[in-house]
Amino acid sequence: MEFPKSTKFDRCTIEIVPRYCETDQSGVIHHTVYPVYFEMGRTELLRANGLAYRDLEKSGTFFVVARLEVKYRRPALYDEKLQLETICTLTTRAKVEHTYYLKRDGLILVEGTSALACVDEKGKLKSIPDFMYSKVESANAE
Amino acid sequence: MEFPKSTKFDRCTIEIVPRYCETDQSGVIHHTVYPVYFEMGRTELLRANGLAYRDLEKSGTFFVVARLEVKYRRPALYDEKLQLETICTLTTRAKVEHTYYLKRDGLILVEGTSALACVDEKGKLKSIPDFMYSKVESANAE
Amino acid sequence: MEFPKSTKFDRCTIEIVPRYCETDQSGVIHHTVYPVYFEMGRTELLRANGLAYRDLEKSGTFFVVARLEVKYRRPALYDEKLQLETICTLTTRAKVEHTYYLKRDGLILVEGTSALACVDEKGKLKSIPDFMYSKVESANAE
Amino acid sequence: MEFPKSTKFDRCTIEIVPRYCETDQSGVIHHTVYPVYFEMGRTELLRANGLAYRDLEKSGTFFVVARLEVKYRRPALYDEKLQLETICTLTTRAKVEHTYYLKRDGLILVEGTSALACVDEKGKLKSIPDFMYSKVESANAE
Repeated sequence: MEFPKSTKFDRCTIEIVPRYCETDQSGVIHHTVYPVYFEMGRTELLRANGLAYRDLEKSGTFFVVARLEVKYRRPALYDEKLQLETICTLTTRAKVEHTYYLKRDGLILVEGTSALACVDEKGKLKSIPDFMYSKVESANAE
Repeated sequence: MEFPKSTKFDRCTIEIVPRYCETDQSGVIHHTVYPVYFEMGRTELLRANGLAYRDLEKSGTFFVVARLEVKYRRPALYDEKLQLETICTLTTRAKVEHTYYLKRDGLILVEGTSALACVDEKGKLKSIPDFMYSKVESANAE
Repeated sequence: MEFPKSTKFDRCTIEIVPRYCETDQSGVIHHTVYPVYFEMGRTELLRANGLAYRDLEKSGTFFVVARLEVKYRRPALYDEKLQLETICTLTTRAKVEHTYYLKRDGLILVEGTSALACVDEKGKLKSIPDFMYSKVESANAE
Repeated sequence: MEFPKSTKFDRCTIEIVPRYCETDQSGVIHHTVYPVYFEMGRTELLRANGLAYRDLEKSGTFFVVARLEVKYRRPALYDEKLQLETICTLTTRAKVEHTYYLKRDGLILVEGTSALACVDEKGKLKSIPDFMYSKVESANAE
């Protein structure tokens, strides 16, 4: 398995169509579903940079969510297409931070931020690999 | 880790209180939630027999669902207490079958059956351990 | 809201990429997730016929799952693309039946069937609307 | 339907046993499950005060999550009993805030806070009902 030497993209936008099972009896998407979408955004941002998260895991590198914040502005609805923008805002040896904007037709419905830590197969903290986000890191370092 | 020599109970009843996130916008519990309840019933039937499923997994024995059938008669509702009866109806070397009755105040809402196969850590089929369901097996054999 | 006069397609295939949260600790997609995929298949088969299920609901027509059967042959894995074929196999005034084949690279992982009943906003049984599946019905009637 | 005149309890502790389907392939409870537990804690805190959330909804009062924060310290595991302490930390006309401590054997695994807003059936903001949390409110007012 070969990993990219650096990352080119610090953001990506994906489309998400809420599923029926994600609604609740108040008629909107249940509030615990949005962090699932955020995770999908992170997966696709990695993929845009040439990296599959499952390959990271196979190489013994796991990212775990250490902190999560969500602000709910307006409800999302079943089957109404959403656009999720995922932005990697900070990368250090110890953590990766992302910001999320979930929109419908340009209107922000939900915003979030998260911090991830990097662990090995046994859950022990380790440094974020050199091959990840290196371009962002050097940009931060300048 | 020590496992019981035989099983004493072929059925158990547990109480389940549907969660808000398990409802959908039609106002009832989403139909994909009931198999989650059935799995909880199997876990508690094992526990009633002195066995934790997580200990089975630690010993390298996994049960996987090979077949599932569900009949939906009446909807379950948020926060209205349910009784789930789980019955082990057949155990052979190759599979374990269960029947489920989900009731509210004695009225059957949902019925189901499942067949489980036994696999090792790599997902390869193996015999169901001797120490499981042995009493039921001998009863079947008579 | 206007509905199509008849349905043209009795089957469709969609791509599904399993999400991380859909895995379980045995390393595969949890068995209760597949009926969620089946529901997505039904939604897209309706859409292929010019109909959004949310519009059906707005017009007071709800489809509820009355029976579900699933056969699990091989596990699906995180982030490995799947193809779900959804086939409408029978439509009568009282019920709609579907068959599902979930494949990865042509190999069937999971098969299922379901029967849906049609209800009004209060959950009372009603006839399946004329404008739905009428072509399939006439084909069945010949 | 009659509601209590005031609330007596600003906190409660419930036991939660993580379900198998709540694990992910890294072997721990998926991070999006904890907000589901928090919601269960809120439901039981209401119930401890003589109030069922479903009755609130029937009376046209809905609480929606406006903000959520979660700090993940240590992973929870399948079938290992947890204690969730839910504390109502602030109630005003416009919002209710809670803090959550999820523990296993006294050790904090996950902490969280949330802010809820009150809306009517159409999702329009409204004042939190007098009969809710009145004791806490008067305590705050002193």
